[in-house]
Amino acid sequence: MPMVTGLEGVVVAETNIGLVDGEKGHLVYRGHWAKELAITKTYEEVAYLLWYGKLPDQSELEQFKKQLVKERELPEYIKKMIELTPENVDMMSVVRTMVSAIGNDSFGWPPTLDEVISITAKIPTIIAYRYRLINGQKPLDPRSDLNHTANYLYMLTGTEPSTAHIRALDAYLILTMEHGMNASTFTARVVGSTRSDLASSISAAVGALKGPLHGGAPSEVSDMLEQIGTKENAEPWIRSQLEKGELLMGFGHRVYKTYDPRAEALSVVAEELSKEDPYFELARYVEKKCLELLAEYKPGRKIYTNVEYYAAAVLKGINLPPQLFTPTFVVSRVVGWSAHLIEQAEVNRIFRPQSTYVGELPAE
Amino acid sequence: MPMVTGLEGVVVAETNIGLVDGEKGHLVYRGHWAKELAITKTYEEVAYLLWYGKLPDQSELEQFKKQLVKERELPEYIKKMIELTPENVDMMSVVRTMVSAIGNDSFGWPPTLDEVISITAKIPTIIAYRYRLINGQKPLDPRSDLNHTANYLYMLTGTEPSTAHIRALDAYLILTMEHGMNASTFTARVVGSTRSDLASSISAAVGALKGPLHGGAPSEVSDMLEQIGTKENAEPWIRSQLEKGELLMGFGHRVYKTYDPRAEALSVVAEELSKEDPYFELARYVEKKCLELLAEYKPGRKIYTNVEYYAAAVLKGINLPPQLFTPTFVVSRVVGWSAHLIEQAEVNRIFRPQSTYVGELPAE
Repeated sequence: MPMVTGLEGVVVAETNIGLVDGEKGHLVYRGHWAKELAITKTYEEVAYLLWYGKLPDQSELEQFKKQLVKERELPEYIKKMIELTPENVDMMSVVRTMVSAIGNDSFGWPPTLDEVISITAKIPTIIAYRYRLINGQKPLDPRSDLNHTANYLYMLTGTEPSTAHIRALDAYLILTMEHGMNASTFTARVVGSTRSDLASSISAAVGALKGPLHGGAPSEVSDMLEQIGTKENAEPWIRSQLEKGELLMGFGHRVYKTYDPRAEALSVVAEELSKEDPYFELARYVEKKCLELLAEYKPGRKIYTNVEYYAAAVLKGINLPPQLFTPTFVVSRVVGWSAHLIEQAEVNRIFRPQSTYVGELPAE
Repeated sequence: MPMVTGLEGVVVAETNIGLVDGEKGHLVYRGHWAKELAITKTYEEVAYLLWYGKLPDQSELEQFKKQLVKERELPEYIKKMIELTPENVDMMSVVRTMVSAIGNDSFGWPPTLDEVISITAKIPTIIAYRYRLINGQKPLDPRSDLNHTANYLYMLTGTEPSTAHIRALDAYLILTMEHGMNASTFTARVVGSTRSDLASSISAAVGALKGPLHGGAPSEVSDMLEQIGTKENAEPWIRSQLEKGELLMGFGHRVYKTYDPRAEALSVVAEELSKEDPYFELARYVEKKCLELLAEYKPGRKIYTNVEYYAAAVLKGINLPPQLFTPTFVVSRVVGWSAHLIEQAEVNRIFRPQSTYVGELPAE
């Protein structure tokens, strides 16, 4: 068999979890359009959908939310480990280490939904605990009266977030929970295929998402918006970039050959929010100008807005500092990873591909 | 493209590092027979070979050993994290977490040999530090006058190991450093393909090796030898297992369809050691009886001794407790993982396979 670099086009699993159709611009989670879920549902409802295969009814949702709330608190030794972690350790490394540190003898195989809920509930607490510590602020206990998204923002900032900010972050988190067999989801499945435990699989996936080719560098988009600053400045700034042959960050995607459905949904959210915050209006205006000028400078090349553009716009719009963009991606994608691990366990076979030796041979 | 379960037979990389030929029973490291290296070389020499592509000359070896020695010491915060880790956290989880915790801002992409040496040098110290702590003993500082293998045994036991034990463990470690595109090596490559850092890739690989389908349960072989106990007891014990339709642990392998070259080399080492320790003689006698009786009970099925049989015999023979068998596998396999990560970085392309969605579709 010839070598398949990067396994492009190789199907490694059948899945009931999600469909990514880049030609049509479709993103489906368990029979539902992701973009509709993002606009109409909460983090908890969509996590439930991805894990249990159906949307919860009212009493299922209440019980599920209670369990998530109960699991938010970090064990004391995890807090102390975060405190011990030197300042030159970046947030993604902290998340990877602490997810790993949560694992113990009680984690077996196959992974259980209780373990999944426990790790998912703790990730925002890990990030917020570390974030406040390195900023010289006292870490805050989670607040049981707030939902997952609102509590995350509260633990970071110490103030109760606005409904608009909760809604914007909820939409972002829902839209980035699941995206087919990407590198981190695949990593989780490969680790899980050895019958290793959930802490191993999820911490490995965090490590994969840390790579700039995957978790991306969304701060580049927010840097661009910051540099542009005003509507008037948009066209001259973009023209000058394109004249210099520079890329515009946030446009084009390996998978989507049409409008990225996640960008589409986040654009709807940004439109609503622009009444409350002019930053969202700027983001929408800059997007329009970028697309116009890309069509002018690169005629015939179909380049569309990707999720990073609006992800950055939304995350910046709710005042999240850029060093929290990729860690916040973990807050959502852990849902997809876990769904895939549960599914992988049902039909498990260890991943053991081949390599071709092209080195020297010894004399026989 | 049809689904390839477990990626069996799919070639994902060309490599100069190692060749596993299961039909012929060949294992080659960079142009050398692994079984010859195991009998004639040390851990340091073979690690150098796998990383630098050639065996070191005398002065290269001296310098390399100095660098490894210098990097053995754990940072204070890692020691404290190990102390904080609750008792119900198994050794593989501790190694996974502490390798992750070593990572910081200075780890970039591509991975460097300095980073590789630093992590490889610290793994035995992590294991020994934890091992002595949970056994109520004071952890020991590494001893700079001992080589990698001898120092590992010294840090575990507090006594200077015999030459026979050093030699047996060296052979085991050399033979398990590298084995083609197995699940943990593949995990390391997938994580590294996102341009993530070495701490991410190696801790992910530790997590994959933790899975019983991969890192195995070599303690089952040593349990068998313990139950048999004496030569006289071997035949009746084995017959009774085979009559009950039970498997004999340590025989048969997914890849090798002939004598596993690693078992072959370890058998030579065990033979030498049997003069000094009757346990090795028992192990060789039980192997012979198992093969005889397997031929009698399963005629026509070619079943050969695999590496786990002699790995368990050797590790038990040097008095390593079974809970350290898989962690000790990390001490060796980290060399192969790192060699693959350096190679992957040279021709990198992100691993992003496909999945086929078989769930419901929403109405358009």
